[in-house]
Amino acid sequence: MLTKRTDLALEACELWRESAESMTRLPGVRSRERKSDGYPVTRVEILDERGEEALGRPVGTYVTVDLRTYWKRGADYFPRAVRAAGRALKAMLPESENASALVVGLGNADMTPDSVGPSAVRHALVTRHLLASMPRQFAGFRPVAAFCPGVLGSTGVETAEAVRGLVERVRPSAVIAIDALAARRRSRLCAALQLSDTGILPGSGVGNHRAALNRETLGVPVLAVGVPTVVDAVTLAADLLEERGQDIDEAALRDGHDGLTVTTFDIDAQVKELARVVGYCVNWALQDLEVDDISALLA
Amino acid sequence: MLTKRTDLALEACELWRESAESMTRLPGVRSRERKSDGYPVTRVEILDERGEEALGRPVGTYVTVDLRTYWKRGADYFPRAVRAAGRALKAMLPESENASALVVGLGNADMTPDSVGPSAVRHALVTRHLLASMPRQFAGFRPVAAFCPGVLGSTGVETAEAVRGLVERVRPSAVIAIDALAARRRSRLCAALQLSDTGILPGSGVGNHRAALNRETLGVPVLAVGVPTVVDAVTLAADLLEERGQDIDEAALRDGHDGLTVTTFDIDAQVKELARVVGYCVNWALQDLEVDDISALLA
Amino acid sequence: MLTKRTDLALEACELWRESAESMTRLPGVRSRERKSDGYPVTRVEILDERGEEALGRPVGTYVTVDLRTYWKRGADYFPRAVRAAGRALKAMLPESENASALVVGLGNADMTPDSVGPSAVRHALVTRHLLASMPRQFAGFRPVAAFCPGVLGSTGVETAEAVRGLVERVRPSAVIAIDALAARRRSRLCAALQLSDTGILPGSGVGNHRAALNRETLGVPVLAVGVPTVVDAVTLAADLLEERGQDIDEAALRDGHDGLTVTTFDIDAQVKELARVVGYCVNWALQDLEVDDISALLA
Amino acid sequence: MLTKRTDLALEACELWRESAESMTRLPGVRSRERKSDGYPVTRVEILDERGEEALGRPVGTYVTVDLRTYWKRGADYFPRAVRAAGRALKAMLPESENASALVVGLGNADMTPDSVGPSAVRHALVTRHLLASMPRQFAGFRPVAAFCPGVLGSTGVETAEAVRGLVERVRPSAVIAIDALAARRRSRLCAALQLSDTGILPGSGVGNHRAALNRETLGVPVLAVGVPTVVDAVTLAADLLEERGQDIDEAALRDGHDGLTVTTFDIDAQVKELARVVGYCVNWALQDLEVDDISALLA
Repeated sequence: MLTKRTDLALEACELWRESAESMTRLPGVRSRERKSDGYPVTRVEILDERGEEALGRPVGTYVTVDLRTYWKRGADYFPRAVRAAGRALKAMLPESENASALVVGLGNADMTPDSVGPSAVRHALVTRHLLASMPRQFAGFRPVAAFCPGVLGSTGVETAEAVRGLVERVRPSAVIAIDALAARRRSRLCAALQLSDTGILPGSGVGNHRAALNRETLGVPVLAVGVPTVVDAVTLAADLLEERGQDIDEAALRDGHDGLTVTTFDIDAQVKELARVVGYCVNWALQDLEVDDISALLA
Repeated sequence: MLTKRTDLALEACELWRESAESMTRLPGVRSRERKSDGYPVTRVEILDERGEEALGRPVGTYVTVDLRTYWKRGADYFPRAVRAAGRALKAMLPESENASALVVGLGNADMTPDSVGPSAVRHALVTRHLLASMPRQFAGFRPVAAFCPGVLGSTGVETAEAVRGLVERVRPSAVIAIDALAARRRSRLCAALQLSDTGILPGSGVGNHRAALNRETLGVPVLAVGVPTVVDAVTLAADLLEERGQDIDEAALRDGHDGLTVTTFDIDAQVKELARVVGYCVNWALQDLEVDDISALLA
Repeated sequence: MLTKRTDLALEACELWRESAESMTRLPGVRSRERKSDGYPVTRVEILDERGEEALGRPVGTYVTVDLRTYWKRGADYFPRAVRAAGRALKAMLPESENASALVVGLGNADMTPDSVGPSAVRHALVTRHLLASMPRQFAGFRPVAAFCPGVLGSTGVETAEAVRGLVERVRPSAVIAIDALAARRRSRLCAALQLSDTGILPGSGVGNHRAALNRETLGVPVLAVGVPTVVDAVTLAADLLEERGQDIDEAALRDGHDGLTVTTFDIDAQVKELARVVGYCVNWALQDLEVDDISALLA
Repeated sequence: MLTKRTDLALEACELWRESAESMTRLPGVRSRERKSDGYPVTRVEILDERGEEALGRPVGTYVTVDLRTYWKRGADYFPRAVRAAGRALKAMLPESENASALVVGLGNADMTPDSVGPSAVRHALVTRHLLASMPRQFAGFRPVAAFCPGVLGSTGVETAEAVRGLVERVRPSAVIAIDALAARRRSRLCAALQLSDTGILPGSGVGNHRAALNRETLGVPVLAVGVPTVVDAVTLAADLLEERGQDIDEAALRDGHDGLTVTTFDIDAQVKELARVVGYCVNWALQDLEVDDISALLA
């Protein structure tokens, strides 16, 4: 069913609904939409095996923040986006006040659409070493470490293997993994964030560089922050046609297709901006700080 | 007619033919295909006003080197590509042995798909100052200067204005302008070079940053080396559909379209490689040097 | 006399005084020190030929802002530095309200200590094209263009030649040229700014890439903003010895010296920060804007 | 005794000799000089505790390749340097034919003089994943993985801790750690390589970011490749004075010194070049390949 490639659970829902003959309710899935700081936020919960099967991803919570209006740069668009995403991420974190975190930037820093993870990590407030050396002064912070494992082609080591090695030494309460995703809808390209508590699954993403990063493989909860920065060319074509009410034979469209994955031509600027939103959102969720405080600390 | 946006004269020909009701010959245009160092090379000559009108670009010669097989990395793929493109460029240069040149890298260095011009210039052999200070030692070289004018948004100055300012001081025999282009066919995305003797025209290109750079505005012949690094999303969709024999209503497709321009997700690597081909091709055409010589001089 | 290489007029004064046998007043020179936004500011005026001869540079005003305390990051260190330098620059600008400016970033962007000019230009508010296209909306701004001419080795064109070409087309009321300088005192390395109304002179600077950029060569007033990012190794050695009251034979020290020029090991961070101060200082001097306004416009 | 800071064992020897009152032989140390591919190579062996105490570093072998003539770019200067350093490194590697290696680039990629480790790693032939997926095709290669752990300030994790985590998962036969060093002699700045079999010790290096990386902490042999890219300013001053036969009171010189560490102003170009030598030298030592083969594989 999921012939239209997407890494967003929300889009998987949409596809299910489009393909459903009747208006049957999607079984084992609960979905709810609201606004958060002005941005539409959709929460998809996969509740059981029926939901897993229907949407092709594991039980858990998937929150999508719709950032289409972000690019119109309305009032406070940046701090509102940070809070909207940060609030969703915070709700997924372990509750303990002194819970520690390891922030992992997945992807290839030399490949712009795949670099949003490493770029976001540059905005992360790293505190673990400060708490170790000056525990009294930094008592108000949670210990945070950060890591960019690189990609298999450059390191010879599976990302999951490298992260596991570090997790065993750092022993964080949770891992927050940031990665680039593939969207289905053109309108979500560089205009949405997905936050989930199920970690990262193999076989998706921009560079396909990922084995599973989740509680099973790492031994701690893994929260994922995903940024859709690419779209499959055929999916994009189908999407453009559907928007205009044209019937298409997507199987034919996909036939013989060489898997061209595309991104927007101004991807450098978009990744730069979204990495900042994600980095700040992680800081907002982990520490008790507002956006201006974070800016001051990162200066 | 040219609703499918393309900066390639070859594709304008193809579109004309597709739209022509009968198999009439394209008036005022001569086109010829051959192989050069293993790469297919198509030479389109627009001979008069009929050709100008049909193809929407001025009288002149447009040579397209098809680099699809480049990425299969067959034997000598790099030097063969340099020679195939260099040969076409050389044929357009003023014949005088001590003709000088100004190589101009157009586009935005901070925007990967638009950065192929500035990146190519980094591979140009710049000799003008050496000939000025050591004329005897460098007697075998043509004087070459290089310049990256930046983009209007960063400089406040039209590219053509900035180039004209420099041309008036440097007084080269010819300008060679390198720029990113928009292709129509997905198969030409990052897999072709266009060399022409008509300069650069406004309203096309990746960043739309260009006023005319041609003999009229600069006072010297302007050769253009164009690299298709982007494609219009609707054009891409239409192209994918046509490849599979599906009829589409392209006007409907384009209706309400917000002009999303896309590029391939591995654009960083492609631009890096193509900039090297173009830089070497310019050196090959200007100086009497083989690829290994150029490598040694650039080390 | 000026065997200790320095590009700072203030240091030329100090050297003159150190070498003077009696406490005679430096003829043809007036110097005054005060505080500006908490930073010590020294204004050296070379009044006539006697001053020119004594200090080895032309008649004009040279203001040095001492930024040593900047790196202690006291309250408001950044906006105070911007205003202290901006105030000095503003006083040198043509008074006309709609005076236009061309901001020129000199130096080699690929060589960290020499890249402060090009880096500063990235923070410049470029408005010329906006005023051209939307004169009513941007009526409150002065027209500003920006330009990085590159270096002779990369372009084959003398910097002054390239700037002259652009000045002739853009016709600004003044040029503001930003460049890296050589200091004599270790304590001024990356901890001072020099603003002068005499332009840029050949034979100094980090990369020695400069012919004169001044009113004679460009036809408009040229203000210079210099950032000392390097020091001559022998000068540094002599300086360290003098600080500790040791007598040295500097001629012997310099004898056979191969001209090693050094910079601080954290030059990347220092250039990044100083480029931001300089960029903002130029905006502050040219437009009627405070630091927060500039930040908002550059976001 | 070692008041003149140096990370080079060879310089520690020189300092001992300079300070020795009589021409006594340095106890517990053996040193030998020869030429290798045209470059002077000095091998210092610290044999026992007397040597450890005298030179302030552990028992082991320290080979310095003198690259002063490298920058004159004589015939084959690059492949000769690769072989001279590679030969010394190869002699320190475990002999087993299928010994695997983890190449670690230490230091801060954002700080030019400290970035030689991460830069060198970009030239490393990474094969571990290829051997895992295509063991037959790549049978002739040793498995090599690569890793850049970043610096404490950016990751919150001690370098040694991060490397240990990866070593435990990858289980290489040896670690090769590349790092920037501090030299004493100006003439060794960016003009020498040190190869040793004792790993990396705390308290030295450019960024002081290192805890010990050695067989004790990592459980496998650790070879170190060090590149002197900085020098202490006072050490530099003393060195310049001594070269000219001036007596100095170095204690006075050092008194109140704020620890300014300097590097050459063209450090970007030097690090770029030396990183390439080191990367190739590691490949040469690990795989049975000549320089041209390595170039072909890295293209």
